[in-house]
Amino acid sequence: MFFSHFPEIYRPFTGLMTDLYQLTMAYGYWKTGIYSKKASFQLFYRHAPFGGAGTVTAGLAMAVDYLENLRFSDQDVHYLGNLRDVNGKNLFDEGFLNYLQRFRFSCDVWAMPEGVVSFPFEPLMRIDGPLIEAQLIETALLNLINYSTLVATKAARVVQAAQGDTVLEFGLRRAQGPDGGLTAARSAYIGGCDATSNLLAGKIYGIPVKGTHAHSWVMCFEDELSAFEAYSSVMPGNCILLVDTYDTLKGVENAVIVGRQLRQRGYNLSGIRLDSGDLAVLSVQARKILDEAGFNDTLILASNDLDEDAITRLKQQGAKVDAWGVGTKLVTAFGQPALGGVYKLSALEKSPGNWEYKIKLSETPEKTTNPGLLQVRRFFDHQGQPAGDLIFDADESSPGAETLQSGSVSHFEDLLIPVFREGKLVYQPPALPLVRANCSAQRGLFDGWEGREYPVVLSDHMKQRKLALIERNDVPQSESGHAPRSI
Amino acid sequence: MFFSHFPEIYRPFTGLMTDLYQLTMAYGYWKTGIYSKKASFQLFYRHAPFGGAGTVTAGLAMAVDYLENLRFSDQDVHYLGNLRDVNGKNLFDEGFLNYLQRFRFSCDVWAMPEGVVSFPFEPLMRIDGPLIEAQLIETALLNLINYSTLVATKAARVVQAAQGDTVLEFGLRRAQGPDGGLTAARSAYIGGCDATSNLLAGKIYGIPVKGTHAHSWVMCFEDELSAFEAYSSVMPGNCILLVDTYDTLKGVENAVIVGRQLRQRGYNLSGIRLDSGDLAVLSVQARKILDEAGFNDTLILASNDLDEDAITRLKQQGAKVDAWGVGTKLVTAFGQPALGGVYKLSALEKSPGNWEYKIKLSETPEKTTNPGLLQVRRFFDHQGQPAGDLIFDADESSPGAETLQSGSVSHFEDLLIPVFREGKLVYQPPALPLVRANCSAQRGLFDGWEGREYPVVLSDHMKQRKLALIERNDVPQSESGHAPRSI
Repeated sequence: MFFSHFPEIYRPFTGLMTDLYQLTMAYGYWKTGIYSKKASFQLFYRHAPFGGAGTVTAGLAMAVDYLENLRFSDQDVHYLGNLRDVNGKNLFDEGFLNYLQRFRFSCDVWAMPEGVVSFPFEPLMRIDGPLIEAQLIETALLNLINYSTLVATKAARVVQAAQGDTVLEFGLRRAQGPDGGLTAARSAYIGGCDATSNLLAGKIYGIPVKGTHAHSWVMCFEDELSAFEAYSSVMPGNCILLVDTYDTLKGVENAVIVGRQLRQRGYNLSGIRLDSGDLAVLSVQARKILDEAGFNDTLILASNDLDEDAITRLKQQGAKVDAWGVGTKLVTAFGQPALGGVYKLSALEKSPGNWEYKIKLSETPEKTTNPGLLQVRRFFDHQGQPAGDLIFDADESSPGAETLQSGSVSHFEDLLIPVFREGKLVYQPPALPLVRANCSAQRGLFDGWEGREYPVVLSDHMKQRKLALIERNDVPQSESGHAPRSI
Repeated sequence: MFFSHFPEIYRPFTGLMTDLYQLTMAYGYWKTGIYSKKASFQLFYRHAPFGGAGTVTAGLAMAVDYLENLRFSDQDVHYLGNLRDVNGKNLFDEGFLNYLQRFRFSCDVWAMPEGVVSFPFEPLMRIDGPLIEAQLIETALLNLINYSTLVATKAARVVQAAQGDTVLEFGLRRAQGPDGGLTAARSAYIGGCDATSNLLAGKIYGIPVKGTHAHSWVMCFEDELSAFEAYSSVMPGNCILLVDTYDTLKGVENAVIVGRQLRQRGYNLSGIRLDSGDLAVLSVQARKILDEAGFNDTLILASNDLDEDAITRLKQQGAKVDAWGVGTKLVTAFGQPALGGVYKLSALEKSPGNWEYKIKLSETPEKTTNPGLLQVRRFFDHQGQPAGDLIFDADESSPGAETLQSGSVSHFEDLLIPVFREGKLVYQPPALPLVRANCSAQRGLFDGWEGREYPVVLSDHMKQRKLALIERNDVPQSESGHAPRSI
């Protein structure tokens, strides 16, 4: 049985998780008879978020779930059947509603697995199949891939800034809805976070859960020491004390008192948490107090509005922090809360086996899309380091690395792997810890490219095809031109 | 039967939708025997988002659903029972797990209804009840209220900028998860949006749905005119044509050709959509072409990375736009993707009927919380305009408007209304269109305050209590002080 990556309580597998215009277009394809023409769509983004070079892919497991279970329920069809146009007439006819009721996904899907390092303009997914189906799934796929990839990428940046320290995801309370928190916890784990505070994510995805206590705990007791003693008596084996409710350094001293009590009972003081003030200064002072009292193994956990920039700054200032609790800015991808992923038609079958390649021209050259049935090939050098990526057409017989201008290419890997064949799932998303480990290994391989631009190029064949299409269209627009100007 | 504001597919009513530390604290309250002490918590924010003065509240209907259905399932308890501390010992004992299995929410809840204009430091919710229960729900309440309120507020700003034009929410594809899109559509509607592209939101919440077609539609036909003709033949009563796939003004002319064909068939060309380029210039040119061809009633819909600032700018530039499609920047609250709502202990019962008021001091004065069982009273002048808000203690016998220094107060309304009494729901959230209409009326009442600071003050009694608590605590911290320094 296929493991569901949505919790039991949360499976939006309805065909209605989309924009109305996907249905009006689908209806149009249906009514004009072109609905079963084979099309190829690509899902990609044009800009890496947060000023970075690329992204860590995530969300495929959700997309797989969605595609495999996608249905229009009787209720859904009933709802659509009641939609009216401005004249009060039904928007959709019976024939189309019947089609939806029988709808089963039958496309081929190629995708990058989760946790892969990807770059702008590389297709993260390719959908080949009946135009109507490939069109209908656009909105849901973008929704599922955009957000997961955004948070996995943010997490990878935070983890990199933490330089091997533990990173904990604490964002549920400020996330964009319950699912925002849940998906964020999963994506953050893929990107390299070590644990989450989110119990539901712990239960559903098996992510390790971590937590301490809040200031309200301390406020419920007569004084801080009493509060710490009470907490340590209840949680002797998981005792991380929040020391900044009143006076931080006094709090550390109280933690030391409780730490000594714990030792006498055969336990260790696991850690203290700093949640306010100058974390660089306070962590150094706290470390000193702890070390002088012989609590060298007690960890210092810091939280409070952290992200990769704050962690980098604190490290430069010499902060003595062992674990970072990162919340709001991670789960909402504060600073850039949306990945601008798009989903574009790149080929349409004129007759069986005869593809017409589609390109969208734009006054902004980077907005001109790549035409064809796309694939991405990653070349590695003899040391196993990535040497560059090649975007090519799956029909090309032997796209080579010559365009990379790299003399020492050893082997390659095609990044888009088959996920569905004619609607049948042919891919088993790996267990989450494996995805996370793969991601970490991959990111390590790219370390050598720090500060240099990683080459992502088109195959010669693809380049020529694209130039020919641009040339053909780069004339005063005629009505028969295929030269879309922009997104 | 109570209508669920979560879709059937999406009801995160589990007690696990929280942070681990709520459970460790709950366990601590349980083990130390203080779990049943009555506590009062307040949910509020300190800063209005987007540089505004306040927010439009939203999310209460979700919070009501959550609280009414909150349970720890057998699976949930099983999961918690298997959590281990660093020594491999169970984190929670049997007695506590049994308590969770029997858990039923029994608190009193007071809250501002949805669609209310609220201001910083005003409690949006107050929870009075057993400490353990009031603590356990913190994370979920913050999650549900923070995001909904954020988007409703953003929507209200966009709608205000649109000055009576139609505003459509188009954000699902870039939302933070499926629920991000769904909750955003609901909140945007409360804040004043007229419709959504999100079909699921249309089905579940009854929000009107709108949509046109994408560029891919045009790319599937030989030329733009053929694509328009095909679309108009399929959707004659809902024909809004996207005109910028190739050349915008040529596209408008093609739309006019199709508009004439529609007329001959007894239909109207509903609208055209502009999705790129200089929307101010293009909309003026498009309006001219349409008007000269006699299509004065054909609407111009604009989209492309819009928010309140972009709409304001376009209007200042004379844009001729009738309807605005707003997506990413609305649903993700781009610019400030999280509302910093917090949930703070403000009183704890020492003995039955004898409350100890709780205050959190901070070096930042604004971070010092208001102590007590809070209520908010809104005063109106004789013209029915809001004159100011008073935060007071529900125990005060007759908190007056004297502190507002307004001579002409006529009547008042207490903004926190009873929602649960001892865990029993005593409030029926109004239908969504009513919430939206109330919100619009309320926002209108505040028009007179544009550019002036709306007064939100503490009652004299509350002020004195707060000052006394600050004074008592504003000394070098002793271990017995109740002077938390920060959040």
